[in-house]
Amino acid sequence: MTIDVTPVCPLPNDLPDTVQLAHGGGGRAMKRLIDTVFRTAFDNPYLAEEHDGALVETGPRSVLTTDSYVVWPLVFPGGDIGRLAVNGTVNDLAMCGARPRYMTAGFILEEGLAMASLTGIVGSMAEAASASGVPIVTGDVKVVDKGKADGLYINTAGVGELIAPDPIAPRQVHVGDAVIISGDIGRHGIAVMAARHELGLESEITSDCAPLAVPVLALIEAGIHLHCLRDLTRGGLASALVEVAETSGLAIAADEARIPVREDVRAACELLGLDPIYVANEGRFVAFVEAGDVEQALGILKRFDTCRDAAVVGSVADNPGGRVTMRGPLGAVRVVDMLSGEQLPRIC
Amino acid sequence: MTIDVTPVCPLPNDLPDTVQLAHGGGGRAMKRLIDTVFRTAFDNPYLAEEHDGALVETGPRSVLTTDSYVVWPLVFPGGDIGRLAVNGTVNDLAMCGARPRYMTAGFILEEGLAMASLTGIVGSMAEAASASGVPIVTGDVKVVDKGKADGLYINTAGVGELIAPDPIAPRQVHVGDAVIISGDIGRHGIAVMAARHELGLESEITSDCAPLAVPVLALIEAGIHLHCLRDLTRGGLASALVEVAETSGLAIAADEARIPVREDVRAACELLGLDPIYVANEGRFVAFVEAGDVEQALGILKRFDTCRDAAVVGSVADNPGGRVTMRGPLGAVRVVDMLSGEQLPRIC
Repeated sequence: MTIDVTPVCPLPNDLPDTVQLAHGGGGRAMKRLIDTVFRTAFDNPYLAEEHDGALVETGPRSVLTTDSYVVWPLVFPGGDIGRLAVNGTVNDLAMCGARPRYMTAGFILEEGLAMASLTGIVGSMAEAASASGVPIVTGDVKVVDKGKADGLYINTAGVGELIAPDPIAPRQVHVGDAVIISGDIGRHGIAVMAARHELGLESEITSDCAPLAVPVLALIEAGIHLHCLRDLTRGGLASALVEVAETSGLAIAADEARIPVREDVRAACELLGLDPIYVANEGRFVAFVEAGDVEQALGILKRFDTCRDAAVVGSVADNPGGRVTMRGPLGAVRVVDMLSGEQLPRIC
Repeated sequence: MTIDVTPVCPLPNDLPDTVQLAHGGGGRAMKRLIDTVFRTAFDNPYLAEEHDGALVETGPRSVLTTDSYVVWPLVFPGGDIGRLAVNGTVNDLAMCGARPRYMTAGFILEEGLAMASLTGIVGSMAEAASASGVPIVTGDVKVVDKGKADGLYINTAGVGELIAPDPIAPRQVHVGDAVIISGDIGRHGIAVMAARHELGLESEITSDCAPLAVPVLALIEAGIHLHCLRDLTRGGLASALVEVAETSGLAIAADEARIPVREDVRAACELLGLDPIYVANEGRFVAFVEAGDVEQALGILKRFDTCRDAAVVGSVADNPGGRVTMRGPLGAVRVVDMLSGEQLPRIC
């Protein structure tokens, strides 16, 4: 298999062109792969200890999170599996009100993966980790036989330092809260689908894959009363809102006309028979904010490129509890449910 | 695919018999799988928050570790991939001198995996986590299409609280240190190989898969001067010793006759043309201990079932730096290198 990934650094001459089973065997070949590919890219003092784990400094209250990444294709307009794996974990920490501090990385490689693809993706992870100031402090490499994976799968786990003074969680949502969306939706899902099926859309739609910790921490540091945050990944905006409504037992009323969707994304969705509120994003979130803080929160978010289209899209009420309703452009109100089946497998 | 795993709890009537792509889609089916299979088995207050991460209490110095597990077959004599995934991370934390506190779990499931296999393995993880007192506080589920995984892969990441007063790492090894092995070697590798190839060995050899934190913490709490610890997983005893010798720049001289190997394991190794010092273990470690503490350390270790065969197998010198030598039963001394290629893929 070959994937169009420009290696960040030229391959050392004595590494083979493809990943082999021996690279996961715990012996000389694995050590060489780790030293030349991973340690070089992720270079930091924690990895230099060459131990089974990393010793790190933590505060009294930490947030832990983990995600595995199986997106296909490995590279898509606007990102790749490596960038996604780092930003996804950064974002999950941010959604819990934590400053990302440390990350771990576990790789499952398929025998035969082009070494240049691996170095390209690892380089992309290193860039994303550095952009968010989060060192990858420890990791693991396994290799499975050809046909038992799909290029590579990555797991990242993250540790963050809790910054938010008050709990940020679905159960903290209050009646009267405003629902703010951080930007336009649907680009990641459409970008991956276009890459996978070679849709040949007129304009190239790129993934919104981006780290969200900086804007979220800016809201917290400004003292905005944030009750809940959710990133809009698998299942899209609709599933995130339904989860929060069900967990909090409250009602969320949203207004479809206020949800930012780019014209080309809307056109692609119509072509594919998709509703943008179910399409996955990798750099978007909703914030449940105390009503009095809304203008200040929007002002802060709009300072950041990834959040310049932030908008209020709804509000929280007590009835009908556990339900999400959406007012359409013509005024009709529908009940929104989670995605019931699978819209697009392996989107992240 | 079907695997002989007895489910720990009967399947809820409305779960399908096999894992489907929709179970990874971020919608209703995924929520149902998480609620009925994972949340039920791992039940704890952290998971009950239903958030993107878990808020945990940490001390000032934590240890992080991660490993992915791809062992095949998923179930083998003495364990399964779930038990391995929990104990492996518990052991990596112990090897860094830390008390295991929290764990994350990321699942990559293959479409078509029998739901009964999944519940059995998840139940086994829950048992192992409970036995080590480590809650699984957050997790993730992805599903890949049939033929793109091999049943399931699991990643665990762990956070431990550093207990050791002094650093425990390869660079801390001193000239004169004794090398203690915690028990007999080779059982995990042979058990997996026998299960995979239906070797029909006369006696059933079971994996040594076991948690090692309790004996290790007992050594630390007794004030034993532990300079380095290594669990003997992929690459076996030989690769672990070579790694420590190379990182520390010191010489390790071992005595083959002192290394405990069960007769049936030795016979199986001879049959298969394997050297037991390269065979993987999942419940064994070596400790580099200050010479004056050896008798006390052995006394402590032998109190624990998993360490009752603990023995001194070698010592550390300054020459030849970076090398491991092994004195054979007849007195000849050989230089030991890491495993150069791959002995047995997907052993863990």
